[in-house]
Amino acid sequence: MKKFTTVSDVENLQEIIKKALQIKANSLTETEKGKGKTIGLVFLNSSLRTRLSSQIAAQNLGLNVLTLNAAQEAWNLEFADGAVMNGDTVEHIKDAIEVLNQYCDLIAVRCFAGMKSKEDDVNESILSQFEEHAKVPVISLESATRHPLQSLADCITITENWNKDRKPKVVLTWAPHIKPIAHAVGNSFAEWMQKMDVELVITNPEGYDLDKNFTKDVKVIHDQEEALKDADFIYVKNWSSFDDYAAMPEVKEDWMLTNEKLEKTNNAKVMHCLPVRRNVELSDEVMDGGNSIIYQQAKNRIFSAQAIFSEILDDLNDPCQGF
Amino acid sequence: MKKFTTVSDVENLQEIIKKALQIKANSLTETEKGKGKTIGLVFLNSSLRTRLSSQIAAQNLGLNVLTLNAAQEAWNLEFADGAVMNGDTVEHIKDAIEVLNQYCDLIAVRCFAGMKSKEDDVNESILSQFEEHAKVPVISLESATRHPLQSLADCITITENWNKDRKPKVVLTWAPHIKPIAHAVGNSFAEWMQKMDVELVITNPEGYDLDKNFTKDVKVIHDQEEALKDADFIYVKNWSSFDDYAAMPEVKEDWMLTNEKLEKTNNAKVMHCLPVRRNVELSDEVMDGGNSIIYQQAKNRIFSAQAIFSEILDDLNDPCQGF
Amino acid sequence: MKKFTTVSDVENLQEIIKKALQIKANSLTETEKGKGKTIGLVFLNSSLRTRLSSQIAAQNLGLNVLTLNAAQEAWNLEFADGAVMNGDTVEHIKDAIEVLNQYCDLIAVRCFAGMKSKEDDVNESILSQFEEHAKVPVISLESATRHPLQSLADCITITENWNKDRKPKVVLTWAPHIKPIAHAVGNSFAEWMQKMDVELVITNPEGYDLDKNFTKDVKVIHDQEEALKDADFIYVKNWSSFDDYAAMPEVKEDWMLTNEKLEKTNNAKVMHCLPVRRNVELSDEVMDGGNSIIYQQAKNRIFSAQAIFSEILDDLNDPCQGF
Repeated sequence: MKKFTTVSDVENLQEIIKKALQIKANSLTETEKGKGKTIGLVFLNSSLRTRLSSQIAAQNLGLNVLTLNAAQEAWNLEFADGAVMNGDTVEHIKDAIEVLNQYCDLIAVRCFAGMKSKEDDVNESILSQFEEHAKVPVISLESATRHPLQSLADCITITENWNKDRKPKVVLTWAPHIKPIAHAVGNSFAEWMQKMDVELVITNPEGYDLDKNFTKDVKVIHDQEEALKDADFIYVKNWSSFDDYAAMPEVKEDWMLTNEKLEKTNNAKVMHCLPVRRNVELSDEVMDGGNSIIYQQAKNRIFSAQAIFSEILDDLNDPCQGF
Repeated sequence: MKKFTTVSDVENLQEIIKKALQIKANSLTETEKGKGKTIGLVFLNSSLRTRLSSQIAAQNLGLNVLTLNAAQEAWNLEFADGAVMNGDTVEHIKDAIEVLNQYCDLIAVRCFAGMKSKEDDVNESILSQFEEHAKVPVISLESATRHPLQSLADCITITENWNKDRKPKVVLTWAPHIKPIAHAVGNSFAEWMQKMDVELVITNPEGYDLDKNFTKDVKVIHDQEEALKDADFIYVKNWSSFDDYAAMPEVKEDWMLTNEKLEKTNNAKVMHCLPVRRNVELSDEVMDGGNSIIYQQAKNRIFSAQAIFSEILDDLNDPCQGF
Repeated sequence: MKKFTTVSDVENLQEIIKKALQIKANSLTETEKGKGKTIGLVFLNSSLRTRLSSQIAAQNLGLNVLTLNAAQEAWNLEFADGAVMNGDTVEHIKDAIEVLNQYCDLIAVRCFAGMKSKEDDVNESILSQFEEHAKVPVISLESATRHPLQSLADCITITENWNKDRKPKVVLTWAPHIKPIAHAVGNSFAEWMQKMDVELVITNPEGYDLDKNFTKDVKVIHDQEEALKDADFIYVKNWSSFDDYAAMPEVKEDWMLTNEKLEKTNNAKVMHCLPVRRNVELSDEVMDGGNSIIYQQAKNRIFSAQAIFSEILDDLNDPCQGF
């Protein structure tokens, strides 16, 4: 694997899931693979799970880890090409990336959507600069439109929780929030589930349809109750409007996931990428109830990251590389 | 040892002190004990000594270390049970802890008193959530009411500095400050000294008595001069009022420790947990003088932490655990 | 080497450059040298290159690394001797250093000029406290008046890029900026180049001459065009006025380095310590053009740091130390 920013970087999803589950069974079988190599974990935004799980995964592979909280620890970054930097920005992202090229064998970066300009976000104005300027493999720790390490962890979690010989019905349901939230997790989950052997349904209020480039032909239902019927897995997540970018059109119905709604499903397992706003996105009773596999999902972030880092190291260590 | 948040987690204080002094003599005898295990150091507040000494101690034991500055690096935490999270808080402490459970074999946490609500602080509103929700051993890096790793370092330091065959007189003296300061260090020192073979006296102005639950039957004298007489050790520390919680009742006398006061003691060694406000809590001449063992105390924070981490690892590594 | 804060700590510059280039050829030949020892990297200011390159260098030598962002992670520091600390400062720098003495075998510190008081900056009001109070070797990661690890990386870079049998002409040119910038990089470059076998010329507008204590007899030309003529290397850097300390006297000519100016040189290589304000200090075309060796300079920060840390470890490991 040469980089990891989207599901299309994965050649064989089932193989990667299998590998991640092997790592989960024994995470210390490849402690020499990363020896003498350095991964830079660059955070342009806050992070708990991604920060910790990436560090653990890297350590399990013997990698040196450099963590950089770019805004607080380094310099205020300029992102505009050709900018005359006579304002608040001190270093151009291009130059920061070129320097990271000198110091790291892998660069992992978190760069959220700005939620100001639809064009900037859709075009991945920050991640695209890493993809363009990095001379080493780039790994997304969540970007403007995708959160692939989360989605891989989601695939692992669903695999672990399904042993029937029919496709599970997986419902991605919109949930309420108080602020305009990015589309990355929703987009990414939709994209990855289309590669899984599941029946995917998306449900959200009118005005909240995700970008068609990610959802493609997936059925979108605007009636949550109807969508949740017979669900085996429910993925709860908020996002703001995509069409009227970052707006929050009024929603009259109550979309918070509760036990009452859960009872009308096929005893569905409940998923969420965290952090979650309790009693806004879903109720305490759901979060703390027996159907939640949310913490298991969080744990699987380690194995998702470790599987990907390991694949990329295979490529870096390949003696035939470049031939 | 299953957890470490208070002196009552220590079965045999003399044994732990002895172990810490052995570690001080050679700190690299157990470099394999923590191999493959991860300690999470979670800071909800600032830290210099605790941060660095905990990292050194963990590294000396071969532990992987994950340091998280929760507020700056992760998400704004909610602490109220049942909260409808439609405000500024992004992640519930319960969920953060459950995720740490997935990532760490030991969780160490610093969570100061808020100094707003006496009830919240007395009930350890944050640490108690770690004790309730953590599924791995919890270690306090200072909580609302106690600072046990500091107190153990204090016990080590007194042990190193006493070789007479009588009990030393140890005086915990209040010192001036400009802001309402928490009671954790004072409480904890009082609690631990009661387990040591010393004569403990506490001195503070009227209105500043510590919580009786910690000081128990220890003599409290409101006249500093009288208290310091014949002192072998003086522990300098400020705290605000406990009765009139976090208030700072007027103090007319000068409580700053000076050489003049020191001269009237039994050539007492001077202790402070740091950070110290020079020329407010104690004078430059005391801080920089030959009676100060304050930096030695700071160094002993390494061995205090390493002894505790080592005890907890013994328990985690015990094949009979759970039987 | 007992400490590293200025070029005069280097006994033989050519030997150190040679050593750094050997490390560049194979950076993992001394992975046991720092085993069991700890370096504290203390940042009182922002850092990208210095932060990451120092960590890599320390890891390559097997050192334990403690990184401390002093202001954000620890306490607000007091720098004034004898201060009555009844204001905003919580810990005196002297005490922080004494604690670092207890925890570290080497202390590296970044402490920029405050640009408020010429006297404070010229006297290195912060670094001098480290030099006075540290009981272990001190390494400057840039101080008020010097940036020696950068300068050593600059020497390495020039050495790598010069193979003619005449002295190269090296021009340190002032560049525009929007804020009053410190003199450390300029001073330091001037100081180190005087130890190299080069012809050094400094060019800056009237009113911007650097401190004579650093530039000594080096030719200073106030006409950039004249200075750049026949240049083999151009080092671009802004600084504010030294005489009228931290002022920014008006500059009428355009001092930004452009390709047009570059064409009038001897096909000069362009250097900058980074971060750089593009299209203010130098143009995009220069930064991204074939004459820039700026990223190579950044990479050499690793080998500069590793050579110095290694020299200091030699001294620490010397069995005859103190005899």
